[in-house]
Amino acid sequence: MFEPPVQRLIDELARLPGVGQKSAQRLAFHLLNAEEADARRLADAIIDMRATVRLCGRCFNVTAEDECSICLDLRRDPAIVCVVERAQDIPVIERTQEFKGRYHVLGGAISPIAGVGPESLRMKELVARVDGEGITEIIAATNPTVEGDTTALYLSRLLKPLGVTVSRLASGLPVGGDIDYADEITLGRALAGRREI
Amino acid sequence: MFEPPVQRLIDELARLPGVGQKSAQRLAFHLLNAEEADARRLADAIIDMRATVRLCGRCFNVTAEDECSICLDLRRDPAIVCVVERAQDIPVIERTQEFKGRYHVLGGAISPIAGVGPESLRMKELVARVDGEGITEIIAATNPTVEGDTTALYLSRLLKPLGVTVSRLASGLPVGGDIDYADEITLGRALAGRREI
Repeated sequence: MFEPPVQRLIDELARLPGVGQKSAQRLAFHLLNAEEADARRLADAIIDMRATVRLCGRCFNVTAEDECSICLDLRRDPAIVCVVERAQDIPVIERTQEFKGRYHVLGGAISPIAGVGPESLRMKELVARVDGEGITEIIAATNPTVEGDTTALYLSRLLKPLGVTVSRLASGLPVGGDIDYADEITLGRALAGRREI
Repeated sequence: MFEPPVQRLIDELARLPGVGQKSAQRLAFHLLNAEEADARRLADAIIDMRATVRLCGRCFNVTAEDECSICLDLRRDPAIVCVVERAQDIPVIERTQEFKGRYHVLGGAISPIAGVGPESLRMKELVARVDGEGITEIIAATNPTVEGDTTALYLSRLLKPLGVTVSRLASGLPVGGDIDYADEITLGRALAGRREI
């Protein structure tokens, strides 16, 4: 319907998650009408990221080096490892400034429905790290979803026999939230996880 | 917060219309985790489009040639010109298969608030076409908004003295719509534009 080079760009944009046909058209025409340099910078950023960014050989975080800056930081405690589903979860936890250990990126969560079993995740690599790096504590920071909970439970069963303490991030009311607006599952977990003050 | 090449891509994506910081992160990590070839195809599509697509020298539609395929089509009537705000409106009108003339892309609509006056639009070029191409009828297919209406009125005042018939797309109820859901302005226009059956 559109000129072939425009249609090709619309098709590629529509493959992105959350971008429908109509948004793809809008984005393509934005890039057509934008300054040439602006469009070029986006294309270059994609190519450059793919060319330079790879996964940390130890924790599978994104990095431009062989190992990521967190693994290379000697001030961090190698005995405590926070296990996350995806690399993009790491900056979120870093922002809290509450965690001074290392990370391990599983690459997802166990989901029988989506056909993701433990063997599709980086579990073997984590066990090898427990053996090789003297890890004594694992924090399962998988998402508070059925899949994330299942994965945390799996980690606990897998690693406790190796003498590792496995904990899970607390579930409960978001800080600054309103009890009125809490769903009953979150509120139930907040009750079950109540702490004496 | 993220590795510099990732952050740079997030920043570029966040400059796109309708893409916030969070969606930009999601898109960047999608492109990071996607097949290298998929990410590359998107970057190439952007560069290729910018390298090959330009504006038709006559009507300012997008084209890979000097003139667009519509202007070059000898079966189309050069005496009737449909004036649109943007090139992306042309395929929408083409899909109706009801229009067999040529187009003219203004590049926007008159909007005093946004500081867009007639001199920022391709009005001079349209007047030159009226003189040079024997245009006898103009259909103002600008959007049914205050800006689009203002622009249509301006076109009418500009071109009627040159002996050109200027018409406006009909406003009214969308086909397949429900009167219940029509806003009062649309319904008012549908009433004012009622046709004997």
